[in-house]
This record gives sequence, C-alpha cells and structure tokens, in this order.
Amino acid sequence: MAGEEAVSNKQVILSDYVTGFPKESDMKIITGSINLKVPEGSKDTLLLKNLYLSCDPYMRGRMSKLDKPSFVASFNPGEPLSGYGVSKVLDSTHPNYKKDDLVWGLTSWEEYSLIQSPQLLIKILDTNVPLSYYTGILGMPGLTAYGGLYELSSPKKGEYVYVSAASGAVGQLVGQFAKLVGCHVVGSAGSKEKVDLLKNKFGFDDAFNYKEEPDLDAALKRCFPEGIDIYFENVGGKMLDAVLLNMRIRGRIAVCGMISQYNLEKPEGVHNLMQVVGKRIRMEGFLAGDFYHQYPKFLELVMPAIKEGKLVYVEDIAEGLEKAPSALVGIFTGQNVGKQLVVVARE
Amino acid sequence: MAGEEAVSNKQVILSDYVTGFPKESDMKIITGSINLKVPEGSKDTLLLKNLYLSCDPYMRGRMSKLDKPSFVASFNPGEPLSGYGVSKVLDSTHPNYKKDDLVWGLTSWEEYSLIQSPQLLIKILDTNVPLSYYTGILGMPGLTAYGGLYELSSPKKGEYVYVSAASGAVGQLVGQFAKLVGCHVVGSAGSKEKVDLLKNKFGFDDAFNYKEEPDLDAALKRCFPEGIDIYFENVGGKMLDAVLLNMRIRGRIAVCGMISQYNLEKPEGVHNLMQVVGKRIRMEGFLAGDFYHQYPKFLELVMPAIKEGKLVYVEDIAEGLEKAPSALVGIFTGQNVGKQLVVVARE
Repeated sequence: MAGEEAVSNKQVILSDYVTGFPKESDMKIITGSINLKVPEGSKDTLLLKNLYLSCDPYMRGRMSKLDKPSFVASFNPGEPLSGYGVSKVLDSTHPNYKKDDLVWGLTSWEEYSLIQSPQLLIKILDTNVPLSYYTGILGMPGLTAYGGLYELSSPKKGEYVYVSAASGAVGQLVGQFAKLVGCHVVGSAGSKEKVDLLKNKFGFDDAFNYKEEPDLDAALKRCFPEGIDIYFENVGGKMLDAVLLNMRIRGRIAVCGMISQYNLEKPEGVHNLMQVVGKRIRMEGFLAGDFYHQYPKFLELVMPAIKEGKLVYVEDIAEGLEKAPSALVGIFTGQNVGKQLVVVARE
Repeated sequence: MAGEEAVSNKQVILSDYVTGFPKESDMKIITGSINLKVPEGSKDTLLLKNLYLSCDPYMRGRMSKLDKPSFVASFNPGEPLSGYGVSKVLDSTHPNYKKDDLVWGLTSWEEYSLIQSPQLLIKILDTNVPLSYYTGILGMPGLTAYGGLYELSSPKKGEYVYVSAASGAVGQLVGQFAKLVGCHVVGSAGSKEKVDLLKNKFGFDDAFNYKEEPDLDAALKRCFPEGIDIYFENVGGKMLDAVLLNMRIRGRIAVCGMISQYNLEKPEGVHNLMQVVGKRIRMEGFLAGDFYHQYPKFLELVMPAIKEGKLVYVEDIAEGLEKAPSALVGIFTGQNVGKQLVVVARE
C-alpha cells in the first residue's frame, strides 16, 4: 500500500475512554505510515503536514464516552485524537486549497493528516506573526474571547469585568480586550507566576491566586467593592457560586466553559442561582463556532493590535508530538502558563 | 388622637422573622384604629381602603431577616406586611389621585392604609372586569408573565414552551400567552385538579403532576421529545436541573422565581449548568417592575382578550383579612388553585 511517497506517521492515540482526571497513559504514541499524496479519485481532500497542535479544555469532554454529545462527539479509542491545529497543505484535490497553503482548524494529532471535506479549515493569509498564534490569539481561543466578551457581554467603559482562568489561552485575551474598551479588569489564576503575568504583562488592574483564598466571596468583595458587571466564566462550581453573590444589577455572565468540573464524576451544585432574578443577571453560553463568520472583522481588530504591541500573547510550547499527551493532561491541573500548544514541526 | 373619622383598623402583623416554611403563627391579627383623613400638612399622601390583597411567592423573602436584600427589603416584625393590592382612595393630598379613585399597587396588609409618596400605585381606569384581576392577570403577575415570555424569551410559532408552577398566578398566563403565538405548551403542577385545569381550562397542549413523576428528566423527555425552546422558570432546584438536560440549542430560560427553594436553609445545588455552553442557552432573571413602563401596551393586548374570552384567569379567593395568614402560608405548599388573593372588602 505504501508507495514511493510513503513516510512514517507518528500519532497520538486515545487508548480508552477516560474517567476522572486524564493521565498520560490514557494516550499512546504509535507510528504508522502515510502516503503524502491524496489518494486518486478522492475529491475535495487535503493531505496536511501538521505544524502546531492546540491543547484545549473542551477536549476533555471528547475523551469520555458521551451518551448524548452536547456539541462535540467522543474521540474513538484506538484512533488519533483530533483538535485545532496549524498545518501546511502538501497535496490537495479541493479547489480552494493548493500545495503550500497554510491553514488553521480541525486536524488530527499526528504528523500528517488526510482531511476530507475540510469545512473547518481557514486559510492563513498573514504570516508576519508567529504561526503558532493561529492556535491561540488568531484562532479558536481568540474568537472565543472576542465573541464572549464583545458580542455577548457588550462591555462599556468603566464597567467591572472579572475573568477566571485568566492567564489561559482565552482568559489573557478577555482581560486585554476588556482593557481596550476601558473596563476595570480583575483576573484569577492558580499560581503566583500567573498572577504576576496578569498584572505585569497583560495589564489587568488586579489579580488573585484562587488557591490561596480560603473564601472566594471575600476575595471577590475585596477586588470588586462595587460588584461585577461582566463575568467571563471559565471554571464553574464554587467560583460561579461566589461570583453570583457579587454580580451587579443587569450583570452578564458569558459562559465559556467550566474547567473545574470536567474531571468530576458529578459536577458540583451551584446554589446561588436565585441571585439571577433580583439582579436580572443574564447568563449565556456560547461556542467559538458561533463567531466564525466574524473572523475577517476579528482579524482587522486583532492583527494591527498585535503588531503595534497593544495585545500580547503568552504561549506554553511543548516540543514534539511525543510531548502532546503530557501537555494536554497538564492543562487540567494548571501546569501550563499561557496558551498550551505542541510543536509537531516548524514548517 | 382618634378624631371624628377614626375607625378600627385590622392588621396582619409579622410576629418575627421566619426560617423554613412560614406558619400561620408567624403572623398575627391585631386591631388598631385609624383616622380616615390624610393628616393635615401631609403632602402627596393617600388614605386607602384596601379591597383585595395579593399573596405572592416573593413575599417569602421579605419574611426572612435579609442581610443583603436583593430586590426587596425585609418586613419589620411588629408591623403589618406589605404587598400588592387593589384599593380605593378615601382621601388624597396627591394631585394625581382623588377620592373614590381605584388603584392597584403596593399597600399594607390592613383594612386602611396611609400611603406617602405613592410611587407604586397605578390608577385603575377600566372597571368592566373583576376588580380582583388587578392583583393578578391585570397586575404584577400579568406583567411578569408578559415580560418574561414576550420580552425576554421572544417565542415563535411552533416553539416548545415549558412552564413550571403552571397553574399559579403567573404560570397560567404564560401558557396562555404562549398559545396565543402558536407555541406548543406543556405545564407542570402539583395535583390532578391543577393538571386538569392546565389541559382543560387554560388550553395547554399537555401537563403533568410533578409529584407523581419519580424521574423529572424522563417526564420532560416524554412531553418534549424534541426538547424545550423556552422554559419559564418558577420553581428552581431539581426541576431546573432536569430542564437543562432537555433544552434545545439556543433555548431561553426566563427566570421568574424558584419557589421550591425559598423555604430551604440552603438552596439545592444545580448540577447541569454546563449544558448552557454547548446548547448556547440564555438564562435571564427579571422582575415585573422592569416592565411597568409597558403597562399601557400590556393592557391593550390583555383587556380585549379577557373580554373576548381568549384569556381566562382562575383565582383562589380567601374571604376576609383574618384568612390572609393561612392564604399566604398555603401558596408555599401548593394549597392554592390559581392566583391566591384575599378579599378585605368588596368596595
């Protein structure tokens, strides 16, 4: 089967469905082989060389056996994981893509991927930025921060914005986006190093280490004596309960994710939802995919800001596909500092 | 002090702050006296004869000692309760009100009330309906149903609408309002009699007795095989958890109240909030007061519908102020069938 162009193809395989916290041993590295040509007769198909792979919290859901998938299906044990990445087109039978195009979007956790009907791949036009940014600030996490903050939460100058998991792929951008419109921004994260980043690198007005706060309600009252107008929700559970007590009238909660809950057998109960009534709070969930049609508008805002140094982005880069399992596992215990990604190859 | 016009004035007094389920003995009836004239020199003041008093679930919060009142303050032990009612003006030094005007809005639980700065009283212009309706379908509960359904939830023809506490003051209207725009409407209530009302009197497409459903998720799946587009939330707790599992993409939850939680020392935890993300659910709290400015528009819709028999309203009427404590207590155990109110006097 392997012809002239066949090369070895390292892959990260899901060994079996995961319960609780994922472990490195839930995945394994295997080496197959792949022909670097799209098979004859395959229409609208791409052969990609994967350069950067993104480790994202939502992937935890796909590692479980989902009876009723909400917005993503389970990974298949024995097959490579899939996720967002930056890739180079090596061969194409799709009219919109040609050899050497760079793309970002859904690919597989392997060196080379054959992608049919590439509906979720966007061509990279501007390469005067680190290519890895298309897994983060210029990719799905960027659109997530943009949509959840600007579109759902309509921040106004002077409003009080709180971001949890604030040094992560999305949080660091939410805070910076909120500062661009003149909000007062406070973030929380899980280490002194991350809190320092928030204050000194990302320009948050204040930040705290939630692991050192015995009383989250008290921490929020200290940071937000006037209360919170906008909460960008990344963690859920006890944090959400404490936030509800500190929301202001007509506050908005953009629900991006609840990473503190993903590895629990049963999610924690949230007790303070009655706050929603008297304060007329709006809680709204969203997915980055809801904002893909706004990607060109998003780039017009973000690209100049990056080049002028008005937006910065911190990445935590694991070198080599072999490091992908530990990198992915690490985001659920907060090992990463900034956006976690894996370099498979540098072009 | 009592002059020529002094009469006895029966009052319902809060004995002390309440914990857990309220009991009749948490209130007591006393008889004072009152002069039926506004005291000389009191500007913008009304002397009201109270005709109908409204028993509403939100009043439970006011019976507790609230450290941080959300949208209402605690009642004061030793003083009469206050709440919505229909009253007749006996005397007025306010330029907008004159003797014999009928009004609805905030008054006190007593035969006669002296009201200063009556900001929350609306003049009744149309008396060709039962006056008691101004405690319900034409009053605060009516505006609540209208605002929460039409303004917050934007129902469209063919959408699936679920209402809990559906035979109550607000729920019976929400269901009928949703039918007016062509929705498929299912309600739940706590007795066979109430379920029959929903199906046979209010025109709901289906209804179930939640007390006879061991598995609320299964009951909702049976009634909503396609899922729920709009949930009008009156009860909270386990019901909300089950509803979250059954919401559709871009579903809306109008959070009116959570009566199942008001008498608990600690509210139940809600575990399924992560559903909000993948399904992009919007949960939003609201108060009737947010829609007072729309009252004339509301009347234009509702008044003809009542007169043409397109909207019906079921009231549970307790006769006499002495019955007010048991009537109020009864709504927290579901004793009432329809909107609970108390007749103090019939003009």
